[in-house]
Amino acid sequence: MTAPEPLGLIAGGGVMPLRVADAASRAGRPVFAALIEGFADPRDFTAWPHEVVRLGAVGALFAALRRNRVRQLVLAGRVKRPSFLSLRLDGEGVRLAAKVGRKAIFGGDDALLRAVVDVLREEGFDPLGAQQVFADLLIEGGCPTRARPDADAMADIRRGISVARQLGQADAGQGCVVQQGLVLAVEAIEGTDAMLARCADLAREGPGGVLVKLVKPSQSKLVDLPVIGPDTIRAAAAAGLRGVAVEARNGHVGTIVLDRDVTISEANAAGLFLLAMDADQVLNQGENA
Amino acid sequence: MTAPEPLGLIAGGGVMPLRVADAASRAGRPVFAALIEGFADPRDFTAWPHEVVRLGAVGALFAALRRNRVRQLVLAGRVKRPSFLSLRLDGEGVRLAAKVGRKAIFGGDDALLRAVVDVLREEGFDPLGAQQVFADLLIEGGCPTRARPDADAMADIRRGISVARQLGQADAGQGCVVQQGLVLAVEAIEGTDAMLARCADLAREGPGGVLVKLVKPSQSKLVDLPVIGPDTIRAAAAAGLRGVAVEARNGHVGTIVLDRDVTISEANAAGLFLLAMDADQVLNQGENA
Repeated sequence: MTAPEPLGLIAGGGVMPLRVADAASRAGRPVFAALIEGFADPRDFTAWPHEVVRLGAVGALFAALRRNRVRQLVLAGRVKRPSFLSLRLDGEGVRLAAKVGRKAIFGGDDALLRAVVDVLREEGFDPLGAQQVFADLLIEGGCPTRARPDADAMADIRRGISVARQLGQADAGQGCVVQQGLVLAVEAIEGTDAMLARCADLAREGPGGVLVKLVKPSQSKLVDLPVIGPDTIRAAAAAGLRGVAVEARNGHVGTIVLDRDVTISEANAAGLFLLAMDADQVLNQGENA
Repeated sequence: MTAPEPLGLIAGGGVMPLRVADAASRAGRPVFAALIEGFADPRDFTAWPHEVVRLGAVGALFAALRRNRVRQLVLAGRVKRPSFLSLRLDGEGVRLAAKVGRKAIFGGDDALLRAVVDVLREEGFDPLGAQQVFADLLIEGGCPTRARPDADAMADIRRGISVARQLGQADAGQGCVVQQGLVLAVEAIEGTDAMLARCADLAREGPGGVLVKLVKPSQSKLVDLPVIGPDTIRAAAAAGLRGVAVEARNGHVGTIVLDRDVTISEANAAGLFLLAMDADQVLNQGENA
């Protein structure tokens, strides 16, 4: 009997890579983690075989994955894109960067991710979204919190959907905060938590705003779905928001909710709603209202 | 011989209302300024007849304007939109709010401004953009700085144009910062200077980013054109940017540059470019490059 093939994990920062490794262990699947230097902390991964790899050391990364018999792999966690100069690409990296081309490297995040996924595939790996390996990472449609959005909140959610969609078309972000019809903040590369942090000062009196976070229309569905978790709820509550609206699971696409039980109980404790929605349906309801 | 009709000025915060009053005085035109309480500072307006008016006191505002024989008037300066509850509308305000309707009041800034301009017109006033009274407030096309954008900066400017246009369609902002193809920040209601303030931490190594600020496609051309000035240049330099790109004058539409000589000399001192462009032409050049 041969051991099951290990799941490869290219791990950036944040808790997402750890949750993927946990899910694999629960499923009895071995893991090999390539930790991106400066982003994933080796002290978090002592339970799994792992190696630390510099972001520009593409040849070393491929070698480590192959040495550990990795074929299926998941990219997870945040990596701040470095400047091209500071990447210090190794020989393999230079070869692939030339192939991928300037446009992907200097385009939006989505263009770069698609190029990375294509390269991994050509090298014989099978890159997957974490949600393809562990389907229950995606939240199902519905409102699992005690608080529910009222008609005003739904109007703010509809406005947020149209703003986030316009942004997504420009491959420039996927989140925004709307309060009483006003767009308080729009997310670029600062991240959702940083965007929420500035909303407390921008908010108006009266009913609080909503965070709307969407899957980008052109988003590489495999490796860059929106993620929320308890930290998102805490940041939303601190910003005076009334709730959070995300897209529900639709096949292998949707919103990854980390530590779902904690996320929901934090929302209930703070009186926030969490809505997992079909964005098209929400927009249509507004037109018919 | 009768005195020339005074120019009415509904003044919010910032230096813009003062520059309008200065320009009127230089042109030998009397001014009556209605200062929005909490935004315009009466100590700045001692050179002109003025009254302080609470934002919700619409009837009092109209009465003050009529008492001072105002017909032509300019809205200038920033007003943070209050919540509806904190407005404390007077009787006239309640009547007009009911007429303007919930959609304008709770829509984007642009929807509200259009409604305000319509109301002023129906009340017999003649609301104008500052640039309609003083055409030289708008910057002409060209690059008045010693530094000029190179090919990489032009690529960032083109990306910024497409992001800002998508945003403008959602009536949600008109500015963004792009560096090496990455959208570092997108402006909502925090204002350009606040957006620039967060860019220093988000910037990558290597060539700095550019600020792109556009006229919103649906923008009320009369009263809400983009404004830059020496503060914008200083904030852009502090954020590590290479330059600022805005739309040049096209009829009565374009970008208002406050204290132009100071703005240009600040840019030269910091090594930044200032480009006043035709955005369509810049996009087309990119496609043909």
